[in-house]
Amino acid sequence: MTGSDGGNSAYGNRTFQRSKAHFTDRITADGRDGWPVEPGRYRLVVSRACPWASRALVSRRLLGLESALSLAVADPIQDDRSWRFTLDPDGRDPVLGIRYLSEAYDRREADHPGGVSVPAIVDVPSGKLVTNDYQQITLDLATEWRALHRDGAPDLYPEALRDEIDAVMADVYEDVNNGVYRAGFATEQAEYEAACSAVFRRLELLTPRLARQRYLVGDTITEADIRLFTTLVRFDAVYHGHFKCNRWKLAENKVLWGYVRDLYQTPGFGDTVDFDHIKRHYYQVHTGINPTRIVPLGPDLSGWLTPHHREELAGRPFGDGTPPGPPPPDEQVSPQGRPTPK
Amino acid sequence: MTGSDGGNSAYGNRTFQRSKAHFTDRITADGRDGWPVEPGRYRLVVSRACPWASRALVSRRLLGLESALSLAVADPIQDDRSWRFTLDPDGRDPVLGIRYLSEAYDRREADHPGGVSVPAIVDVPSGKLVTNDYQQITLDLATEWRALHRDGAPDLYPEALRDEIDAVMADVYEDVNNGVYRAGFATEQAEYEAACSAVFRRLELLTPRLARQRYLVGDTITEADIRLFTTLVRFDAVYHGHFKCNRWKLAENKVLWGYVRDLYQTPGFGDTVDFDHIKRHYYQVHTGINPTRIVPLGPDLSGWLTPHHREELAGRPFGDGTPPGPPPPDEQVSPQGRPTPK
Repeated sequence: MTGSDGGNSAYGNRTFQRSKAHFTDRITADGRDGWPVEPGRYRLVVSRACPWASRALVSRRLLGLESALSLAVADPIQDDRSWRFTLDPDGRDPVLGIRYLSEAYDRREADHPGGVSVPAIVDVPSGKLVTNDYQQITLDLATEWRALHRDGAPDLYPEALRDEIDAVMADVYEDVNNGVYRAGFATEQAEYEAACSAVFRRLELLTPRLARQRYLVGDTITEADIRLFTTLVRFDAVYHGHFKCNRWKLAENKVLWGYVRDLYQTPGFGDTVDFDHIKRHYYQVHTGINPTRIVPLGPDLSGWLTPHHREELAGRPFGDGTPPGPPPPDEQVSPQGRPTPK
Repeated sequence: MTGSDGGNSAYGNRTFQRSKAHFTDRITADGRDGWPVEPGRYRLVVSRACPWASRALVSRRLLGLESALSLAVADPIQDDRSWRFTLDPDGRDPVLGIRYLSEAYDRREADHPGGVSVPAIVDVPSGKLVTNDYQQITLDLATEWRALHRDGAPDLYPEALRDEIDAVMADVYEDVNNGVYRAGFATEQAEYEAACSAVFRRLELLTPRLARQRYLVGDTITEADIRLFTTLVRFDAVYHGHFKCNRWKLAENKVLWGYVRDLYQTPGFGDTVDFDHIKRHYYQVHTGINPTRIVPLGPDLSGWLTPHHREELAGRPFGDGTPPGPPPPDEQVSPQGRPTPK
């Protein structure tokens, strides 16, 4: 999210606190904040390492917004100016023409408080940041961008289920999405233990629910699944070891391991995930936790492609809709970021 | 072994090298080095955290040498004077009367080179260190101390199998026992990757062998099993996360997980293991790897007590001998160091 999560965390003197997004303008169908939904006008900036940005990557794929909302992928390793476009030719985003995401932040507001975070949506004509509101962006993609959705796009935030989705997401945010960070960035044993215990308590509460039903809410994929997925897909790779959430690996929990593999193997989920970016980001950026910056060889990724048998549960992944097609050729995850079949 | 393995390792400027033991006198039946085997004369100093010292803990139990060779257990957390007796009343070993193991080293040789390491055997009358030769001590307990073995003690180093035992132990030492340290203390990515790959390559070579036979060599427990056990029992608790040997957890390898649980549940093995000492030592002493000194809550230990079904393989754990009885009451591992049945 922010540069080394340094805008949020504090090593050594206080409890980890995740910042609220500073730029909370919304891009809406009616343009009430001055930012109407328009095809081709905005650019989504992500890191494939970041779970918060990855929510938007998944939503954009599921909803078929690839051509309406273009994509910039930042280098997983930030420097002291934060996220940078060093994966692109000449180290510049080819559409925005900038080297650092911070340049779009600065164009919007000089000396803005808070860090430079992804996901970020930038207005291409002005080069200004519109929003870095990680809690709102995907909800708006699901609801405000409907006119630009592909045919067969699922309803990721159905009105009838919003109360339940919101309730599940609130618990998952507190204990899991953000809980792993509170565990990993803890500087005191008691603080770590409280966070780590909450992570596993919540996962153990979710387990019987997901043993009975294929998805978290209703019988289709919703925003709640996207938000749980982006943490779970990182669990064994970085949260287990690097953040010390090591009571068990996800691969040892039959239900959750089946659930996350089911989603991983669903078009729009796994095809956004780059394990290489994930591992290099966490292990190389957080030098307060991993001073050697060595990136582990494990875990073995081949299990991600094994049968999960979740089809046996009732459930219609896309409801009355259809799965998305493959990602655009220039958005394929590199081979080193993906599991190789055994 | 040594203080934070600082006598052996080097953070930041050179490849990890394990020191040879400096004091290599042997305690033998014929006393040819001046140190004859005698009941009650020597004191074994260990840390329950240390895999090298734990070899001697297991051998002593299997051979029934508890009353012949007394035991001092050091605090798992060393300070800058290395291993200390802070678990004992007034912070002094009640038999040797010393606060630091280094005092016995100093009595033997002022300004000795190399670190202060466990296992160490001290001559009680003189208070002098006799040996810290971690590769030889257990072989001598098995062969030179025979006159003091309990009735029914197994032959842990049978003559007819020594070539095979030595060959297996040499590979296991290089790739596994010491390999996990080379991985964990690596300061360069390539160095880490070579070591970590060798760890798993060796474990994968051992897997089919241990799928066929209950023990590494022959059909009984030998020194080779003791040496593999003391690394494997620590694998998921510290080597997997802290030393980044994370291709898979041992609990994910059916054969090795069965093998190590079989030994853990065998009298003389698991009753020497203190997971609390192990975790606190590694995570709190190696601040170059874990600067926060936070000790993870995981892994869940309850699996250690689950059925392993290894009895189905041919094999006679103690050969023509018998298992040892329970450990002496004052040598019981504390409850926080042991798994609780589910």
